[in-house]
Amino acid sequence: MRLAIYPGTFDPPTKGHLDILKRACKLFDRLIVLVAENPQKIPFFSAKERLNLLRGLTTDMERVEVEILKGLVANYARKKGAVAIIRGLRAISDFEYEFQMALANRHLNPRVETVFLMPNRNYTFLNSTLVKNIAELGGELSSFVPPLVQELIHKKLKGFK
Amino acid sequence: MRLAIYPGTFDPPTKGHLDILKRACKLFDRLIVLVAENPQKIPFFSAKERLNLLRGLTTDMERVEVEILKGLVANYARKKGAVAIIRGLRAISDFEYEFQMALANRHLNPRVETVFLMPNRNYTFLNSTLVKNIAELGGELSSFVPPLVQELIHKKLKGFK
Amino acid sequence: MRLAIYPGTFDPPTKGHLDILKRACKLFDRLIVLVAENPQKIPFFSAKERLNLLRGLTTDMERVEVEILKGLVANYARKKGAVAIIRGLRAISDFEYEFQMALANRHLNPRVETVFLMPNRNYTFLNSTLVKNIAELGGELSSFVPPLVQELIHKKLKGFK
Amino acid sequence: MRLAIYPGTFDPPTKGHLDILKRACKLFDRLIVLVAENPQKIPFFSAKERLNLLRGLTTDMERVEVEILKGLVANYARKKGAVAIIRGLRAISDFEYEFQMALANRHLNPRVETVFLMPNRNYTFLNSTLVKNIAELGGELSSFVPPLVQELIHKKLKGFK
Amino acid sequence: MRLAIYPGTFDPPTKGHLDILKRACKLFDRLIVLVAENPQKIPFFSAKERLNLLRGLTTDMERVEVEILKGLVANYARKKGAVAIIRGLRAISDFEYEFQMALANRHLNPRVETVFLMPNRNYTFLNSTLVKNIAELGGELSSFVPPLVQELIHKKLKGFK
Amino acid sequence: MRLAIYPGTFDPPTKGHLDILKRACKLFDRLIVLVAENPQKIPFFSAKERLNLLRGLTTDMERVEVEILKGLVANYARKKGAVAIIRGLRAISDFEYEFQMALANRHLNPRVETVFLMPNRNYTFLNSTLVKNIAELGGELSSFVPPLVQELIHKKLKGFK
Repeated sequence: MRLAIYPGTFDPPTKGHLDILKRACKLFDRLIVLVAENPQKIPFFSAKERLNLLRGLTTDMERVEVEILKGLVANYARKKGAVAIIRGLRAISDFEYEFQMALANRHLNPRVETVFLMPNRNYTFLNSTLVKNIAELGGELSSFVPPLVQELIHKKLKGFK
Repeated sequence: MRLAIYPGTFDPPTKGHLDILKRACKLFDRLIVLVAENPQKIPFFSAKERLNLLRGLTTDMERVEVEILKGLVANYARKKGAVAIIRGLRAISDFEYEFQMALANRHLNPRVETVFLMPNRNYTFLNSTLVKNIAELGGELSSFVPPLVQELIHKKLKGFK
Repeated sequence: MRLAIYPGTFDPPTKGHLDILKRACKLFDRLIVLVAENPQKIPFFSAKERLNLLRGLTTDMERVEVEILKGLVANYARKKGAVAIIRGLRAISDFEYEFQMALANRHLNPRVETVFLMPNRNYTFLNSTLVKNIAELGGELSSFVPPLVQELIHKKLKGFK
Repeated sequence: MRLAIYPGTFDPPTKGHLDILKRACKLFDRLIVLVAENPQKIPFFSAKERLNLLRGLTTDMERVEVEILKGLVANYARKKGAVAIIRGLRAISDFEYEFQMALANRHLNPRVETVFLMPNRNYTFLNSTLVKNIAELGGELSSFVPPLVQELIHKKLKGFK
Repeated sequence: MRLAIYPGTFDPPTKGHLDILKRACKLFDRLIVLVAENPQKIPFFSAKERLNLLRGLTTDMERVEVEILKGLVANYARKKGAVAIIRGLRAISDFEYEFQMALANRHLNPRVETVFLMPNRNYTFLNSTLVKNIAELGGELSSFVPPLVQELIHKKLKGFK
Repeated sequence: MRLAIYPGTFDPPTKGHLDILKRACKLFDRLIVLVAENPQKIPFFSAKERLNLLRGLTTDMERVEVEILKGLVANYARKKGAVAIIRGLRAISDFEYEFQMALANRHLNPRVETVFLMPNRNYTFLNSTLVKNIAELGGELSSFVPPLVQELIHKKLKGFK
């Protein structure tokens, strides 16, 4: 049985994240989506909200669990015996950051391999920041995020006003 | 009659921005420079100040108007019937961000085309952040910004002290 | 009346080229597609064949003409009074080559502006070499090239055997 | 049982290729290394020689087989029921070519996922062309290729003289 | 006698910085490491702490001095008569920023040349932000920073709690 | 006394090469320009012609010699006791190739440091291939190459016809 973990901030989860998750499901026996707390930045959604969103979005995916990550990905992988860290690779700007993280993770835990998957080309230029920017300016989100996420974004933005 | 819009933060407007604007004037019948408010970051110049600067810098350009942008570029373009969004493309780091924005804008308004122009090579590595950094350290700005902008930067920086 | 030229090798023309051409048609009054001879490399299709293919593919586009380019693009633009050179910009690898060519063209003819357009995201990673490679290995081409081009490729490949 | 394929030219196989292969072995149940014939270029080693080299280098790896690829990778994957195509991702220049191939393969066979792995950082800048260039100029190869490959390169180069 | 300066934020100094410094020592007669104050961001270590760390780390390097930089690098170089500004170049993301700074510095002081050196490949993906991120999550730092720096980071982080 | 070497194909030497050479002269006591034979490709100018051109172009530079390179740069550097290999770094596409070569050279001879210099921004997008392409299409070369080179190119091209 091979376990992979899919860490990220997921603030918010996008259709691009779900696309990567589905692709990873074909390759591994079990997957844990890991929601990073990211203590430095103020998130749009709290880690708890993101956990619930991702659990809601993956109820039909039997092999998938969602957890909040505390501490280093490399240590979590070691504790759980994961063989792979899943990362979506969309574009050049991802590339270098991802390589840096992958090398650091390999250094901290040589047993776990970072596996890069390519999202559907519809999501090549999609990321969470873009979603938040468009949302704040009142743009349509339905091609970027699932309905569940869209609703919560609208609820949140109303709360801000 | 073809209308193009040239959106940006212009904080401050640089010689690179003016160079792109002049090039765009040869291609379209009418141009609207759109000053983005950018509510998330604290700007160096207020949107109002940037509007006035750009109006001052374009008094001689008959085809050019300057407005403040509220909301999404794609919606503004739809309302005005613009056929093109003008963007300067200087370097690789621009490239991906610009592609992302252009794809999002195409999604939100398929009628408007993002048109990328290349600035004079003297401005390949020029941007507004660089100008502000050099200004704060007391460096000479005359090759980066027009005199009008230089004056206002100096006035502003004195006000800070 | 503003004239733009769209130079390229078009060996073969792809759906990506046609996509760029249609976008350019919305921005300019008249367009000349220029088939470069490229004397250094042995082409898959002769310049004459590519000319005919492109003429066949653009019969419905009233503003578009197709010609064979001899000599420098910058000189052709000068002779015809073109205001713009159209180039599709798909990805980073394009970027630097295109910038180099655009700077050389600006040097040789400062009156003509290189205008970069972004193809439909379905064609972001499509180019003529990929088409030829897939064709030679017997792969399906219908999502990459128009039927007219597909037919001629198959005819040509049979001729090779 | 999950099968992955690892296609490439392997002309010659380097320590970087073996590094990727070992990493892939931890993730999949069975691996087929596919030696591409590449009919367009004249290879340094014939496909037969590269097959034999790779078989020699992988005798200890139980899960690994080596075959010569005829036709498209995507079709081979379909025939064998492979779930993954393995590719090493070293640097930016790889990135775009690899993305293009991965998108083409996904188009031709949506069932197989391209999986990118990162080699040991010692091999980040290593490729087969570099090995051949250094060999031809009489440089030391032992940190770039396994002894078996080094021997055959030297034998081949002597034959050329 | 040729003087080079090596400006940076060094927050904290890493093994990558020391590697570049040692390489630069072979090329120039005298080196001044310049600790930038960077008034905009809140540093992890104060400029004073970074000065002391770097002085501690370079006690054995006879040709090296460490100073705090106030004002523009280009002006400092002029005052001291430096012939070179040393910069480590690790990866693409560095590249554009570094080029921009180098062009600005050349504009402000044409007498000083920016000289780019490549760190040991072990440090290709290392930077100060990565070190801080790993430190905050409790990860092991000994391969990224010298012991002196590691100690001070731990002391500092304890103070935060 | 510190010696640097500046290897390249120089087919033909451009104003960009001379710009880098002049910058390097300010940093080192003695410079050897090394003309690579490059046995694989058919050059435009023979190594002998390029040697003579470069000697002609550097007669006024006292510290500069020109030689033909046979074998590996790293070995030449060792034999001569060079401390630096000079390379111009213009753009991203250079970057990766240059890094690969620099790492290979460091591996083959750890005593010599590759030093990257940035050309004048007028030459950021200039290279020898562009010069040859423009020459073959009858374009003006005077801003790209020195008169001596321009003459020989015209002479050569006449010989081809």
